[in-house]
Amino acid sequence: MSELSVDHVLGIKYLTPQDIQLVHQTADQFKEVINRPIKKVPSLRDITVANLFFENSTRTKLSFELAEKRLSADVINFSAAQSSVKKGETLIDTVNNILAMKVDVVVMRHPNPGAGVFLSNHINARIVNAGDGAHEHPTQALLDSYSIREKLGDISGKKVVIVGDILHSRVALSNIFCLQKLGAEVMVCGPATLIPKHIEKLGVMVELDLRKALQWCDVANMLRVQNERMDISYFPSVREYTQQYGVNMELLQSLDKEITIMHPGPINRGVEITSEVADSDQAIILNQVENGVAVRMAVLYLVASKIKRN
Amino acid sequence: MSELSVDHVLGIKYLTPQDIQLVHQTADQFKEVINRPIKKVPSLRDITVANLFFENSTRTKLSFELAEKRLSADVINFSAAQSSVKKGETLIDTVNNILAMKVDVVVMRHPNPGAGVFLSNHINARIVNAGDGAHEHPTQALLDSYSIREKLGDISGKKVVIVGDILHSRVALSNIFCLQKLGAEVMVCGPATLIPKHIEKLGVMVELDLRKALQWCDVANMLRVQNERMDISYFPSVREYTQQYGVNMELLQSLDKEITIMHPGPINRGVEITSEVADSDQAIILNQVENGVAVRMAVLYLVASKIKRN
Amino acid sequence: MSELSVDHVLGIKYLTPQDIQLVHQTADQFKEVINRPIKKVPSLRDITVANLFFENSTRTKLSFELAEKRLSADVINFSAAQSSVKKGETLIDTVNNILAMKVDVVVMRHPNPGAGVFLSNHINARIVNAGDGAHEHPTQALLDSYSIREKLGDISGKKVVIVGDILHSRVALSNIFCLQKLGAEVMVCGPATLIPKHIEKLGVMVELDLRKALQWCDVANMLRVQNERMDISYFPSVREYTQQYGVNMELLQSLDKEITIMHPGPINRGVEITSEVADSDQAIILNQVENGVAVRMAVLYLVASKIKRN
Repeated sequence: MSELSVDHVLGIKYLTPQDIQLVHQTADQFKEVINRPIKKVPSLRDITVANLFFENSTRTKLSFELAEKRLSADVINFSAAQSSVKKGETLIDTVNNILAMKVDVVVMRHPNPGAGVFLSNHINARIVNAGDGAHEHPTQALLDSYSIREKLGDISGKKVVIVGDILHSRVALSNIFCLQKLGAEVMVCGPATLIPKHIEKLGVMVELDLRKALQWCDVANMLRVQNERMDISYFPSVREYTQQYGVNMELLQSLDKEITIMHPGPINRGVEITSEVADSDQAIILNQVENGVAVRMAVLYLVASKIKRN
Repeated sequence: MSELSVDHVLGIKYLTPQDIQLVHQTADQFKEVINRPIKKVPSLRDITVANLFFENSTRTKLSFELAEKRLSADVINFSAAQSSVKKGETLIDTVNNILAMKVDVVVMRHPNPGAGVFLSNHINARIVNAGDGAHEHPTQALLDSYSIREKLGDISGKKVVIVGDILHSRVALSNIFCLQKLGAEVMVCGPATLIPKHIEKLGVMVELDLRKALQWCDVANMLRVQNERMDISYFPSVREYTQQYGVNMELLQSLDKEITIMHPGPINRGVEITSEVADSDQAIILNQVENGVAVRMAVLYLVASKIKRN
Repeated sequence: MSELSVDHVLGIKYLTPQDIQLVHQTADQFKEVINRPIKKVPSLRDITVANLFFENSTRTKLSFELAEKRLSADVINFSAAQSSVKKGETLIDTVNNILAMKVDVVVMRHPNPGAGVFLSNHINARIVNAGDGAHEHPTQALLDSYSIREKLGDISGKKVVIVGDILHSRVALSNIFCLQKLGAEVMVCGPATLIPKHIEKLGVMVELDLRKALQWCDVANMLRVQNERMDISYFPSVREYTQQYGVNMELLQSLDKEITIMHPGPINRGVEITSEVADSDQAIILNQVENGVAVRMAVLYLVASKIKRN
């Protein structure tokens, strides 16, 4: 069996197309596992994984935890709210302390872009980035692309538009890198204020008009409106954002073809998409969640299999 | 072996007397298990249980967790404080997301009455209600009745008084339903302001005088004074509540017969009952806690055994 | 194989030198275990351990949890923040409730000195004290002495200075007892305001001058400056504390001999010790963390092995 070209999964940026395909193929096998009555395999029985979440996250953390348990890993959880981080300790000290307890793999979410890369240069463990600020969220992009591949058979040549707040989204950036590496064409769509300047340099098209974007694409990935973040201004208001960038059935049915709707969750029903769209056959939102566990099992398995050989 | 008449355990209201007896008989077996040196059975080895607590609960959650672990289930915990519920997601979306990760059984505590019933109409998993607002707390009533049966041999024909804040208590309501289905006579006793209007329509007697209530009963279930809930007025004060509705040894010994004292915990020593009463041989409070694990093992086992057959 | 002279590990005060040596020898075996590819042993497979943390603690809790998992114990976690303690329940009731769920060993951290001893007189389970106020933190002293023994071969006759806030430190007190029982000479060093009056009565030397203390010792255990505790005054300021009681490479290299540097963590780099010192070969800080898991496995194993014989 093949292996990853990298020791850590820090960002899609650092993965080759072959790495991504290897994750997808490995996830195929684990998806079979988690759909069997007995959903566990002993693959990581002698591996300890630490989930270090320096930022709240319910669903990503649950998904990783389930992936780890189904691989029979030993799991320890550490969240910043109750931690010595508050006591002024450095990130390297915190993580080195945890590693001294003989941890093999670190899954980390951190508010600072590049926290995973920084750590990988200073500690002796495999790292999986579970989101670093507005930078990357590689396992989300791997599960999103896996879900497109599952629905449409192949990603190469497909047209994918990412709709919403591109500027503050690690999901957007990781998806752009991932889809491009797999040969898809990528467009971003949203209010001009929420689209990074010079994003065209990444080889991405920009479209401010949602209807035109949907008319063009095979798949629309609708990002979440982060109502709870006061520093993001959905100019001029969420209601007007929805009028311009929300998707309802009427809009979907007015297109020439049937497109696939994705959403990283949690959905604001009636904001990014209506309930009718969320629950329609065109949406693969719950498939994304299901595939998340299989893809994370694949990532952890591939990262851990490199340890044993060292 | 027999099975439950229902797919979910949402409330005692929906159970037949045979269902309740089946839970008790199954709990008998698990009580033997947890009193062996090796307290685990592999019964739920291929089952994943999610504990969804949208309201704080230490002891009910610990009791369910231990029950799940002793059945060898895979357990994931989700509590609202750190959840996407805050981000405006609907309950159905939150739960469907968790189910997409291949969860078989959901144990849920929720502040809204009827949350479990609502959910059972919309999701594809077995649900056990761990308390829904002031509505029902079925596993508490099952363990309370189990504890009476263990102490007194049979429930049919026994006289049980529930003392305290009947109005805000899910424990009271579930106990009333459960004891009546098993053939007991039920009385409620407490300040008139804390007794629901028209409760007699449930076939329950009402007695405002504690001494008269205790003189009548075989068992007194002393509800907790919820000091921390500012919206409940123990008119005119907790001290006067204790004078009228608290039980001390003097009162107990002045009765014609020896009655059994229950309490769902946590006890406010010196409020509902004195320390002397709590620690006396007449109290079966710690038996209730111990039986809680066995009864919850039984409920989970019976609910899960229906999944496998589907 | 030998056994402990006590039923609980409540404080070093209650252990004999032979007890401490038995812990060290048992930890030697577990240290081998956790350095194998397969880090688990089935020793506590039929034991349930409850971690009761009435005070926040990340690293001690993680260390105990890992120790318990590597011994294959069933683990339940209870922390005060989400507990019925807030509801006015007594400590004995809280713990008895947990024990009624069939818990064999309680690991407890509590803000009140003597909480473990108090509990041991009232409940029927083995107790391991994970820190009780400013009183004792026995497993820390056991791992500290284990780490000195590992580094220097023997503890008897060695000179150890504990530097910093002796007055508020349970680490200091447990270390003093432990090192003296093993035949070391112990000195404390720090600002006069942070040294308990009459500490000489414990057979401890007091030295206010750091250079003199370091010149004397073989090992310096640098306590943490608790910046976050507003009630401790590092007179006149943390900066001046560092000038007088902080260790840097220049100071270390000006000594006649090479001493060993310890720190219980988390380190304030640049306060108690500089980064250069923390990362030097003279520091055994990460060894202490690693040994913590092995020593706690030993303590739990020895305490639990007494249960089975009862």
